[in-house]
Amino acid sequence: MIVVMRSAATKEQVDAVVARIEEAGLKAHVSVGELRTVVGVIGDDRTKEQLRGMLEAMEGVEKVVKVLQPYKLVSREFQPEDTVVEVGGVRIGGPEAVVVIAGPCSVEGRDQVLSVARAVKAAGARMLRGGAFKPRTSPYSFQGLEEEGLRLLAEAREATGLPVVTEAMDRRQLDLVVQYADMVQIGARNMQNYTLLREVGRVRKPVLLKRGPAATLEETLLAAEYILSEGNTQVVLCERGVRGFDNHTRYLLDIGAVVVLKQLTHLPVIVDPSQAAGKRAYVPGLARAAIAAGADGLIVEVHPDPERALSDGPQQLRPAEFTHLMRQVWAIAATLGRAPASLTAV
Amino acid sequence: MIVVMRSAATKEQVDAVVARIEEAGLKAHVSVGELRTVVGVIGDDRTKEQLRGMLEAMEGVEKVVKVLQPYKLVSREFQPEDTVVEVGGVRIGGPEAVVVIAGPCSVEGRDQVLSVARAVKAAGARMLRGGAFKPRTSPYSFQGLEEEGLRLLAEAREATGLPVVTEAMDRRQLDLVVQYADMVQIGARNMQNYTLLREVGRVRKPVLLKRGPAATLEETLLAAEYILSEGNTQVVLCERGVRGFDNHTRYLLDIGAVVVLKQLTHLPVIVDPSQAAGKRAYVPGLARAAIAAGADGLIVEVHPDPERALSDGPQQLRPAEFTHLMRQVWAIAATLGRAPASLTAV
Amino acid sequence: MIVVMRSAATKEQVDAVVARIEEAGLKAHVSVGELRTVVGVIGDDRTKEQLRGMLEAMEGVEKVVKVLQPYKLVSREFQPEDTVVEVGGVRIGGPEAVVVIAGPCSVEGRDQVLSVARAVKAAGARMLRGGAFKPRTSPYSFQGLEEEGLRLLAEAREATGLPVVTEAMDRRQLDLVVQYADMVQIGARNMQNYTLLREVGRVRKPVLLKRGPAATLEETLLAAEYILSEGNTQVVLCERGVRGFDNHTRYLLDIGAVVVLKQLTHLPVIVDPSQAAGKRAYVPGLARAAIAAGADGLIVEVHPDPERALSDGPQQLRPAEFTHLMRQVWAIAATLGRAPASLTAV
Amino acid sequence: MIVVMRSAATKEQVDAVVARIEEAGLKAHVSVGELRTVVGVIGDDRTKEQLRGMLEAMEGVEKVVKVLQPYKLVSREFQPEDTVVEVGGVRIGGPEAVVVIAGPCSVEGRDQVLSVARAVKAAGARMLRGGAFKPRTSPYSFQGLEEEGLRLLAEAREATGLPVVTEAMDRRQLDLVVQYADMVQIGARNMQNYTLLREVGRVRKPVLLKRGPAATLEETLLAAEYILSEGNTQVVLCERGVRGFDNHTRYLLDIGAVVVLKQLTHLPVIVDPSQAAGKRAYVPGLARAAIAAGADGLIVEVHPDPERALSDGPQQLRPAEFTHLMRQVWAIAATLGRAPASLTAV
Repeated sequence: MIVVMRSAATKEQVDAVVARIEEAGLKAHVSVGELRTVVGVIGDDRTKEQLRGMLEAMEGVEKVVKVLQPYKLVSREFQPEDTVVEVGGVRIGGPEAVVVIAGPCSVEGRDQVLSVARAVKAAGARMLRGGAFKPRTSPYSFQGLEEEGLRLLAEAREATGLPVVTEAMDRRQLDLVVQYADMVQIGARNMQNYTLLREVGRVRKPVLLKRGPAATLEETLLAAEYILSEGNTQVVLCERGVRGFDNHTRYLLDIGAVVVLKQLTHLPVIVDPSQAAGKRAYVPGLARAAIAAGADGLIVEVHPDPERALSDGPQQLRPAEFTHLMRQVWAIAATLGRAPASLTAV
Repeated sequence: MIVVMRSAATKEQVDAVVARIEEAGLKAHVSVGELRTVVGVIGDDRTKEQLRGMLEAMEGVEKVVKVLQPYKLVSREFQPEDTVVEVGGVRIGGPEAVVVIAGPCSVEGRDQVLSVARAVKAAGARMLRGGAFKPRTSPYSFQGLEEEGLRLLAEAREATGLPVVTEAMDRRQLDLVVQYADMVQIGARNMQNYTLLREVGRVRKPVLLKRGPAATLEETLLAAEYILSEGNTQVVLCERGVRGFDNHTRYLLDIGAVVVLKQLTHLPVIVDPSQAAGKRAYVPGLARAAIAAGADGLIVEVHPDPERALSDGPQQLRPAEFTHLMRQVWAIAATLGRAPASLTAV
Repeated sequence: MIVVMRSAATKEQVDAVVARIEEAGLKAHVSVGELRTVVGVIGDDRTKEQLRGMLEAMEGVEKVVKVLQPYKLVSREFQPEDTVVEVGGVRIGGPEAVVVIAGPCSVEGRDQVLSVARAVKAAGARMLRGGAFKPRTSPYSFQGLEEEGLRLLAEAREATGLPVVTEAMDRRQLDLVVQYADMVQIGARNMQNYTLLREVGRVRKPVLLKRGPAATLEETLLAAEYILSEGNTQVVLCERGVRGFDNHTRYLLDIGAVVVLKQLTHLPVIVDPSQAAGKRAYVPGLARAAIAAGADGLIVEVHPDPERALSDGPQQLRPAEFTHLMRQVWAIAATLGRAPASLTAV
Repeated sequence: MIVVMRSAATKEQVDAVVARIEEAGLKAHVSVGELRTVVGVIGDDRTKEQLRGMLEAMEGVEKVVKVLQPYKLVSREFQPEDTVVEVGGVRIGGPEAVVVIAGPCSVEGRDQVLSVARAVKAAGARMLRGGAFKPRTSPYSFQGLEEEGLRLLAEAREATGLPVVTEAMDRRQLDLVVQYADMVQIGARNMQNYTLLREVGRVRKPVLLKRGPAATLEETLLAAEYILSEGNTQVVLCERGVRGFDNHTRYLLDIGAVVVLKQLTHLPVIVDPSQAAGKRAYVPGLARAAIAAGADGLIVEVHPDPERALSDGPQQLRPAEFTHLMRQVWAIAATLGRAPASLTAV
């Protein structure tokens, strides 16, 4: 950690900074430049992180520059090799496999979820998604079938062998989701719901953690760190678009985030092209880009009849469109030496 | 609601849209232009809102334009006169009073919170803030004194008469906060935690709802609508900066949001200059701007010794700096015909 | 065009809007809803566009909704088939070919540019890039070799047969660039330099137009419309990243923009992964994503010795890295039925 | 400047970095931490800045942290006292005066500009604005009266004594503007048009430089540095809103930028609330906020008949609205010890 003093900082201010550092049990290394004095801080990382804000608050300090990243368990430096997350027999992460998760935005009924599950499995999907508890911007929108939705997802898993991922937004929902599903999704709106992150960190189920629309990569990795620090290391990150300024797409897919995250962390990284696109016509291009960029998988919304969907109809692919997309996805994955994950549980 | 068809839309596609509208019990009004056909939708608002995504998902549809806002209870159209929220005898909202809430970022100990409470009261603050449960980006940062912090806040209220606002992040914390505090804060990270919004909507305490850093004004108003729709109409909105691209300030204070929200909604709107600034030196300018723009109040972080603060030291004002700022704030408020709120409870 | 009146609009205000529309020679169609009155405007597009701001300025008007896009010559509705831009025998655009442009950020000397030109040609690049006039954020940074740089680019073309693209920032530079180069680049910082757009619209050379970092897609297309409206239809659009809030990458590559632009316009769309990445390690992932998303080509920075580059060293690939990337690019292009453009001029 | 090495950096990589620094005539100071090695770079600033990109491009380097700002002439460190820019007898900048510039978006005719000039002068404006050359997003929009517009502005100055500011977008326009006007505006779209910045730097007229909608404060200050480095020190900066994600306002007014810029630079800083608001109803709140935040002035659009304005009608105030706003502005300015600038030339 490096403390950069203002050019007008007095000797007393520099001395106070040094004293503050030493008082915390760390070592200070002062370097007097022509225009500015810089103080290096050496010692225990945790202590440094706690001291950072205090030093920034001191008179004469211009800024404090971190040399180390504030996250640890999730970083590649801590664990160089890829984490592989196993969900009901499907392995996500590692250099070879690409995993596609697909299904309806919301679970709306038995026929709907079963027909979609069969169709996406036939096209190569290896996990089923479907919302039972739906976070909706408006309190007046359809909020999901709740436990009935979970039951239908479990039924679809019985019928197809596809493990199931679905979202939980609070402790009560989490208890239910854990009973029925194979993986718990923490949605973008709850990425910094630290209570929920800690709770899901204590659960024995893998977690799909979506990046918030204004979250930096550091904030995203620290959200994952909350989960890992509670003992649950089975976390998959998901880029789903950040808040942009052009309204042709619903969110701005940050494809660079996929590339960067794969270098910063050992956790698997997948992409949700449906949320980002907001429009069916834009989903395939984003999905292909994600795989080409190096994502470990996709989560795609598919609906048998989008114009009757109870949520997000405009962005859901029809099964035939999904099947066509999957052919492109597998071809691109192959150029990078990757193949569809196998479905050992079936 | 207006459905704009693509220029290449076929007659069959237009007919299908009309049929879909009529099937939902609404009326369609078709207008054929030279290049495009436009279909007006007339009838019940709730039904229209539910139909919107379905129509957007149909073939041949370019976009669906809302004519009405998706929120209702929070809108000025629904209630033209200002809502006045009463918190322990202090009235927030309405054309005359300006309410300043002040206190430490985190409650750290009895002396700290008592000394700050007395200092900010003397300078004209009418409510006390202080975090007992702290949402921290890193799991390794100080997380608050929890119930002990609540007790100290209550003690400071006894000593000064200042009503207390503090944050709750989940149901358990909410139950505790409601026992000790006069107003519940929902933080920016939880603005779209719909479970929490519904729970706080069922509580008999006023709510301070902070805008999320990537939330549109419509999303912010819909978050408030969640609370009002559960029966709790005592909601104060708070602008605290959105995610920007320049790192001199921590967030980008959206001063225009204050101006716009005051027109869109009858709820009081206050501003948090401390979170937005991230640096003590920038807080006064933002605070003055907020009052000049028409905000109904401020929430400001004050600490007796920022360089020893356990959270957000760099952005906390010292008591003397706060006192100086308050003089400017009251002078600006006076030019707009506004004055400090009275503290009836003392 | 549709005028949405406020719910509180008076009959006089609606009448005034109708009168204003009819005065301009257009027809007004009034539709009175339960809560709001909506006025449709029918007639000549140009007149409607001019009237739009005036109507928005009238009392009682809430908003004016465009039904038609404000651009014409660049739109797919105006010209459904792809434009193919020919640059010195290389054809950019159309469903089959993918064109890769590569070369150093700045031209720094004969050996540098010749060695890069030969290396990128061998790897499959079909055009040479290189800055002779450099737009630099700081006035104290290296500003390019100017005309000497253009001469070296022309020499490299003689040696390799690769057509050359290079940037011009004003009229004087444009006159020189036109003499030496095969295509003129308008950089992101000048995307809304309308004088320059008009001038390049009158030149008989193809244009590479980069999207500005805060430009909406509509603004980008209108910038191209400036060029086409002057008679130059040979325009290639380039996405190079927008301003984002995370500093791991230099800009946030808007991969969705590629997908959307390919639907909105008939002009070719290419991607600059180097500017967006800002770091060599992130370039390949972005480049692969661009091709997978459907881009018609890439423009990539390559330098024989990045740690001695006079500009943007961190983001320039070494020739061997570029060669490796090209193999991946051609493999991905092939999965979409596309191949490297041919180099007929050699 | 500080070079942070990757944790996996080898001794050879560190040695290469040190060698590169010394080869450039600078001194390297190596500090080996537990996890990372950090190399301080000491010596001439210009050389350091040139070396920065090269060091970042080297193997084993994680990032290079600047300790010094890249701008010089515009910084408060270089010149602590406020610059006061004199425009036709009106002084902008310094702790006492607040200068309001007002006038129509576009000059549309003699009566329009004269009537507005008289009205805004009566309300306390001390300079006249009005566009003769208009940068318009669409090539089909009204582009200004050009030289005829300049003549009308000069005529209005004769009639009222108000000095005139108007925009130039290229060299030819600049030559004309210099003949007729008292101050040259460089618009937001041309903030990084470096050719134009250099040209206006060689002119003997004060410059109003608007911040681009995606420009960081550092980029904005470096744009001003271009002008100062050519010898023209008479530059006023203008915040006019950055690109935001909510469409209620046209741009997001970055009020914090005013506060920060006043600390970073000695140049005067004013605010354009009209461009940011995009809607008349939002202008007064933004204007008041700007003065309260510490801006040295405002530039406000005023039109006698906004619903007939040829550009930006919705955001132009009527003269009576402007007069009302000015009363509030002067009252707020007074609370900060500031008063309207005097108009010595009349």
